[in-house]
Amino acid sequence: MSDLGTSLELIRRGADEIIREDELRTKLELGKPLRVKTGFDPTAPDLHLGHTVLINKMRHFQELGHHVMFLIGDFTGLIGDPSGRDATRKPLTPEQLGENAETYKQQVYKILDQEKTEICFNSEWGNALGSAGMIKLASRYTVARMLERDDFKKRYTDNLPISVHEFLYPLMQGYDSVVMRADVELGGTDQKFNLLVGRELQKQAGQEPQVALTMPILEGLDGVRKMSKSLDNYVGIDEPANKMFGKLMSISDELMWRYYELLSFRPWNAIKRLRKEVEEGGNPRQVKVELALEIVARFHDKKMAKIAEDEFNARFRSGEMPAEIEEKQVIVEDDMIPVAGLLKRSGLVSSTSEGIRMLKQGAVRIDSERVEDGAMTISAGATHVYQVGKHRFARVTVIQGTKEKA
Amino acid sequence: MSDLGTSLELIRRGADEIIREDELRTKLELGKPLRVKTGFDPTAPDLHLGHTVLINKMRHFQELGHHVMFLIGDFTGLIGDPSGRDATRKPLTPEQLGENAETYKQQVYKILDQEKTEICFNSEWGNALGSAGMIKLASRYTVARMLERDDFKKRYTDNLPISVHEFLYPLMQGYDSVVMRADVELGGTDQKFNLLVGRELQKQAGQEPQVALTMPILEGLDGVRKMSKSLDNYVGIDEPANKMFGKLMSISDELMWRYYELLSFRPWNAIKRLRKEVEEGGNPRQVKVELALEIVARFHDKKMAKIAEDEFNARFRSGEMPAEIEEKQVIVEDDMIPVAGLLKRSGLVSSTSEGIRMLKQGAVRIDSERVEDGAMTISAGATHVYQVGKHRFARVTVIQGTKEKA
Repeated sequence: MSDLGTSLELIRRGADEIIREDELRTKLELGKPLRVKTGFDPTAPDLHLGHTVLINKMRHFQELGHHVMFLIGDFTGLIGDPSGRDATRKPLTPEQLGENAETYKQQVYKILDQEKTEICFNSEWGNALGSAGMIKLASRYTVARMLERDDFKKRYTDNLPISVHEFLYPLMQGYDSVVMRADVELGGTDQKFNLLVGRELQKQAGQEPQVALTMPILEGLDGVRKMSKSLDNYVGIDEPANKMFGKLMSISDELMWRYYELLSFRPWNAIKRLRKEVEEGGNPRQVKVELALEIVARFHDKKMAKIAEDEFNARFRSGEMPAEIEEKQVIVEDDMIPVAGLLKRSGLVSSTSEGIRMLKQGAVRIDSERVEDGAMTISAGATHVYQVGKHRFARVTVIQGTKEKA
Repeated sequence: MSDLGTSLELIRRGADEIIREDELRTKLELGKPLRVKTGFDPTAPDLHLGHTVLINKMRHFQELGHHVMFLIGDFTGLIGDPSGRDATRKPLTPEQLGENAETYKQQVYKILDQEKTEICFNSEWGNALGSAGMIKLASRYTVARMLERDDFKKRYTDNLPISVHEFLYPLMQGYDSVVMRADVELGGTDQKFNLLVGRELQKQAGQEPQVALTMPILEGLDGVRKMSKSLDNYVGIDEPANKMFGKLMSISDELMWRYYELLSFRPWNAIKRLRKEVEEGGNPRQVKVELALEIVARFHDKKMAKIAEDEFNARFRSGEMPAEIEEKQVIVEDDMIPVAGLLKRSGLVSSTSEGIRMLKQGAVRIDSERVEDGAMTISAGATHVYQVGKHRFARVTVIQGTKEKA
């Protein structure tokens, strides 16, 4: 066990809120390993760096000698969201779920120490609860307090439907904490309410309430919106090394520091030192390379990371990629734009037809990869480095503007 | 099967609302026995006449050749109301529940034909639903629509707590209708919302929605507030014959017609005839005797009813009871009043000490029964006939007035 000050500093790093920090201090002072819980929905097995923010925080606890528990929410996953408002969210079969869980495990063990990580499935106690148990659980919380949750409040006020079962999910999540006897639960800031329900249910069950630690939602490559696959501003943790390296090199200097805070395992002091050097006139490029190397090595290995760097530098040195790339924004009415149109509107070509011709000639690259599909479209929110011919470069973010009324 | 007009007339009698009557007509036109459901909470096994309003309506359906199903809600009864707001509402043990259910059956068979009555227990399918099934069920309805229920809306607006599980009860009740394939569900007017939830769930399950038939809540002996044991304005169906007879003879003429409508099985035309006779100057006393005889005979037998009448008449003839008894109201601040105080305030004695003395002498009767307990109190809401000595009579209703602020 590390000393209290060191522990608190590491736990606090990047955290949005700790409820309550005095309770955390008391728990840490006991000197016993804390039971640290995070839950994941097994419906989307491919993780991106945004998901790893929480896993990184679990790793901090693991480094400090605490017991980390990775909860796979297969109970609710098997039920799915039957409300029909989101047709894509079908209940998973037990087989799909098992596969997703396996993928999850393999992915998180790139960050967590497998030997020291407990994997839990809430189907184990969720089904045993029974219908009567579910009703009893539902009796533990009031409708008014549920409607205090920001998104529920907003939907209720806006006359958007909330299905009654949506009130049961936070209660199930809280019940997980009771069964798992969690001392700490980690979640995104959007999970705050649910983590607090866990505190409440633990108190009612005669347990010490868990400390709720929320982590910010990671910004995507555009530095503005949350990292998300559907916004195409993400770095998937199973992407090829050189693609991952290129994407990380494409971020702004400001975002780089954010990623250092939330994604790097470098000591905080070392990061502060790097920042000071850059602020005093140092070149941020090498600092960005260090970050990209660390992250690529985590999900591949050091050798692959080095190769990715060398390839990147080769393109750079041969004049294939300039040291500074101009930032541009293209505002679109729709939620996507054909790539030829984007090239025109960002000034990389003089007309859409030139764009189409360049694409056909194989003279267009997106994040260093050659693109030949003239019909390809780019989603709103996506940031990529576009290259036309040898020397025309721009890092373009597609932004969806307000549609004019007809 | 009776003809459509006769059926509709009998079904409509006393009903508050039929949703929807055109659907009922269509169902009846098919000429097949309808599946008619009513649910009862097995927490309170002693029924009073107020509860029989629904059972009487089931009997109408039974007389018309339909299949009546008496649902005992033992599933939710076993759970109880764990919200803690009503400490008296503890979960029942399976043994208590079995006893209550047995009592219920014996009581309802005084009205319904045992051979033709199906008794159902919702624990049969409620437990099988499981926790996952309960979540799915909860997904069938929105929070906003639940909050449209009058009592929920009022409590929500008044910042009074509604526990989340209270939203599950109407859904369970609706699910009962799906499992029981109910064509018609009967309930009190306070059940309207829950009956409509049943319609909704049946539609979602691909069934024809049940017809929701609501019956008014029966007024107690005071003719004003709903009949209720705690208001002491009730006639219990297991009360002794002469007590029951006396209580029924104590009601006002106006209330008598209400009771004829909701409690008598006389044909509607015969009742209209009686009413016309009274309106044209006939004596209502004999009409009241007929009602009392019918109801006492139902829960005891004809012989017992006759004996009760004879005893009542003997007191009446011997001058023990006048033909007309003055109606009085005593307004109290508290929810009860000592009987000596009531005698004074209704003018039957000139002082509380006289009242106490008369009680000690055995000169006070309440509903013809001698009372000697000087410390006896009368609850607000109760209506009784009080007698002091041989000739002083009054029918007194205790009413709780507004308490003045200190």
